[in-house]
Amino acid sequence: MATAKSALRRENKAKRLQRVGKLARGKFVSAANVAQVLKRVIEPGDILCLEGDNQKQADFLANQLASLDRKDLSDIHLVMSCITLPAHIQLFKKGMIRQVDFCYAGPQGTAVADLVKAKKFPVGAIHTYNELYARYYIDLTPRVALIAAAQADRKGNLFLAANTEETPAIVEPTAFSDGIVFAQVNEIVDKLPRIDIPADQVDLVVQAPYPMHLQALFTRDPAAITDVQVLMAMVALRGIYEKYGVQSLNHGVGFNTAAIELLLPTYGERLGLKGKICKYWMVNPLPTMIPAIESGWVESVFAVGGEVGMERYTAAHSDVFFTGRDGSFHSNRAMGQLAGHYGIDMFIGASLQIDINGNSSTVSKNRITGFGGAPNMGCQPAGRRHPTESWLKVGAEANPGPGSPPGRKLVVQMVETFQSGRVPTFVEELDAQDPSIRKALHGVAPVMIYGDDVTHVVTEEGIANLAACRSIAERQAAIRSVAGYTPVGLKRRKRDTEELRRRGIVQFPEDVGVSPREASRSLLAAQDIKGLVRWSNGLYDPPPQFVDW
Amino acid sequence: MATAKSALRRENKAKRLQRVGKLARGKFVSAANVAQVLKRVIEPGDILCLEGDNQKQADFLANQLASLDRKDLSDIHLVMSCITLPAHIQLFKKGMIRQVDFCYAGPQGTAVADLVKAKKFPVGAIHTYNELYARYYIDLTPRVALIAAAQADRKGNLFLAANTEETPAIVEPTAFSDGIVFAQVNEIVDKLPRIDIPADQVDLVVQAPYPMHLQALFTRDPAAITDVQVLMAMVALRGIYEKYGVQSLNHGVGFNTAAIELLLPTYGERLGLKGKICKYWMVNPLPTMIPAIESGWVESVFAVGGEVGMERYTAAHSDVFFTGRDGSFHSNRAMGQLAGHYGIDMFIGASLQIDINGNSSTVSKNRITGFGGAPNMGCQPAGRRHPTESWLKVGAEANPGPGSPPGRKLVVQMVETFQSGRVPTFVEELDAQDPSIRKALHGVAPVMIYGDDVTHVVTEEGIANLAACRSIAERQAAIRSVAGYTPVGLKRRKRDTEELRRRGIVQFPEDVGVSPREASRSLLAAQDIKGLVRWSNGLYDPPPQFVDW
Repeated sequence: MATAKSALRRENKAKRLQRVGKLARGKFVSAANVAQVLKRVIEPGDILCLEGDNQKQADFLANQLASLDRKDLSDIHLVMSCITLPAHIQLFKKGMIRQVDFCYAGPQGTAVADLVKAKKFPVGAIHTYNELYARYYIDLTPRVALIAAAQADRKGNLFLAANTEETPAIVEPTAFSDGIVFAQVNEIVDKLPRIDIPADQVDLVVQAPYPMHLQALFTRDPAAITDVQVLMAMVALRGIYEKYGVQSLNHGVGFNTAAIELLLPTYGERLGLKGKICKYWMVNPLPTMIPAIESGWVESVFAVGGEVGMERYTAAHSDVFFTGRDGSFHSNRAMGQLAGHYGIDMFIGASLQIDINGNSSTVSKNRITGFGGAPNMGCQPAGRRHPTESWLKVGAEANPGPGSPPGRKLVVQMVETFQSGRVPTFVEELDAQDPSIRKALHGVAPVMIYGDDVTHVVTEEGIANLAACRSIAERQAAIRSVAGYTPVGLKRRKRDTEELRRRGIVQFPEDVGVSPREASRSLLAAQDIKGLVRWSNGLYDPPPQFVDW
Repeated sequence: MATAKSALRRENKAKRLQRVGKLARGKFVSAANVAQVLKRVIEPGDILCLEGDNQKQADFLANQLASLDRKDLSDIHLVMSCITLPAHIQLFKKGMIRQVDFCYAGPQGTAVADLVKAKKFPVGAIHTYNELYARYYIDLTPRVALIAAAQADRKGNLFLAANTEETPAIVEPTAFSDGIVFAQVNEIVDKLPRIDIPADQVDLVVQAPYPMHLQALFTRDPAAITDVQVLMAMVALRGIYEKYGVQSLNHGVGFNTAAIELLLPTYGERLGLKGKICKYWMVNPLPTMIPAIESGWVESVFAVGGEVGMERYTAAHSDVFFTGRDGSFHSNRAMGQLAGHYGIDMFIGASLQIDINGNSSTVSKNRITGFGGAPNMGCQPAGRRHPTESWLKVGAEANPGPGSPPGRKLVVQMVETFQSGRVPTFVEELDAQDPSIRKALHGVAPVMIYGDDVTHVVTEEGIANLAACRSIAERQAAIRSVAGYTPVGLKRRKRDTEELRRRGIVQFPEDVGVSPREASRSLLAAQDIKGLVRWSNGLYDPPPQFVDW
């Protein structure tokens, strides 16, 4: 009955920090010493977490890591949300990575596909954000975490500003398992506006020579919204938002949902929907929501991250947004994703491909992206127990069996039948099912949202209510009915479509009271970025790439 | 285009704190002034959150609240995890509560049922923990939160000790929406062992005249485990743990799973399963896990809460448990529940009633309890994308359709066919379906786990593999086959059972290589609490009610 384990991990941590020695002054490392320090604190075999989601990046630490070589660092099990920087790709090219577990590879999707082909991308699995964070507490607990913060004080307390995002979900499991937390910060100050991460969870701090990278990911220029997108938005508003009385929701990052946001104060107001729908949001501070907020539609917005340029606007609207005692915006990716999973009536998003069974994916043969938050929010949360009007209404249509909950969350895919370049959105089989991709992923196709979870598909043709379908065959016929002139759509049988339309499972715009002739950009509350700035009373500061005046 | 909202909430908060005036010195309130302060900071119409889960209670603040009257405080929308104290019941009896949204009412289940009958329990909904926390960020954001901490320092920073539990999930949405956070603490000290909640998220602090209530909820005396429970544990180990190669899991609080924990170092070792199963746990520091930990079975344990008496043991085993830099245990209910939702192969728990469709509930006509974490962990997490051996194997048996993920989480109900007092566990219809209960809950029956989510039912008769059933009728036959001499079991048709057994959907102990004659308490690694203390090398300090020596 010997004590099997005691404090080996703790002793090991102390040894690593001892090796840093004079390369740090207390917790503080100078930028010039970072590469050396990384070499000394990371050991072969480590689970290493590199902070970086679709917005915020610990890019200085990533670049320093990528400056090392295989002889300095190898056999690393990398865990990180988003593979988005060239530095991340370098780690694989140099052969430093034994395994990677991640969520998303947006801008590096092509590079990742190339690495897969070259057998240099030893992937464990692709995750949804909260699933990966969950594993940080179970079987993927980091030994070292490289993170990013806005500011540190002299004790090593951290301020995360508008971009709390995933930092706490990385720091907590690392710090409380005797792992090493190394933070890059934009600046070191005497007094922080507020403390987001207490100093005793932080081991090392470097003031980076350049501020951390922040992607303005959620900014959509109203000028780029088309009449067709306005039509789809009107159809969704009448056929889904109004029909089900959607109170709480998440919007994706696309132009389709931006169009809906910009129709609320105009078309939505005309329909008498103000105060009846769209009150509670789990969504980043989208600039295209400014007109709806200014018009009094929105009660509350919780966010997984910030958005560049929305700092002054959110601070001035602390009744709608979550802000700290210092007055500035607060986000939290893990808790926001939890809120988006369990706390809302509807998830609505877009996808690159949808198959005849309603499965969707953003993976193509030459581009492996991944998931982000979509699977977590765009699924039926089987643990949910609280009813809402919307949840019960969709549930009743779905006619649940004797072992099922009575309600369903709205999970809506809103897509044009063709992507740019006349590439069909609807396909018989997803590219994600390609044998070479499945092989790289232990036999599992990277499906973003499964058809069983989807309740509605909206296209410029109309709405297919998948929840109300009574069989797989019926679901396929409903999808074909709104798939337009794609090969999938052309295979529809007129009789099936008519029957589904008679039963209200397929609805064309006129069936929900929308005349396509009405659908015009002129209905949008703002026509361009300048219009959003005007609505914001000058509080929105669009990033330079969006400013042409 | 007027600015609709600005900082009304913030101004309102300032006014409330002004009203406190000299009743506080800075943030600090004396115990004698608490009732007066509560009267001044809470307003009619408020969403009020009272901290209290199945372990930790802000009981001093709850008692002070209950000392007020309807004229002091009314029209309150109460949100809280667990209605467990007499003080909570008082709030309803006094008519102070307009609506309540909660999770669980363990010890007060009968009192809650009485309140329902008296129409004095205006319930919104019953939730699973993380679902309720999710709504704190969406449509149930507290204006005032009354919480509990171990210690505060002079600035109002808080130390939560072993019981972090749900505190951050309450404080974050309240503090960042200009709500008021009022903490009771056991003591005020000059220097905290570590900071769990930074002071700028805390408005008011009181040193309570008695330490916060902590329930020793997860302590099971091995002496109370029966031979029948040992048999079920052996069947589960061979027929589920071994068969699927379960790496990561959650155990409930019952004696059935305690038996499994105590069989690992004996029976499990004999089967050669060490290192092959049960490595990663999301579970509180259960004393009955001590022998398995000492025998080197366990890599890691993350917990939603602490357990009274396990403080020294967990601190000495920081390689297995999560501990702070100060060396003491760390928990987190929201993140632990997230880990248990997305990060594990198996949830196994028990229930008071299971119907023929596999739905389960702990509600009876005279006792409304609720859910806690079971729906969240005991469901199919539709957002999960990472495969494990176990997940894929169950998935293959379930023969998923073209719109479903390829894997399934193991969700196991482990129950004896009869509860104490010869009350059958298996019923044709759950008490939770009773019209009077449904009526009180907006038409929704409080089902804890739905049959569609359950993969296996284990009883002393054997295993029913519900995941492998191909129809509702087959599922019902499988459940009847293991329901023994209950009315549900007696309705089984011998031919059905034989056919299901032939297909491996029903397995009796001998089918998984277990001889009932072998099943004996003598196989347990510890026979009683004293045995656990011995295994712990004297580091486990059982609470007085468990000590008879």
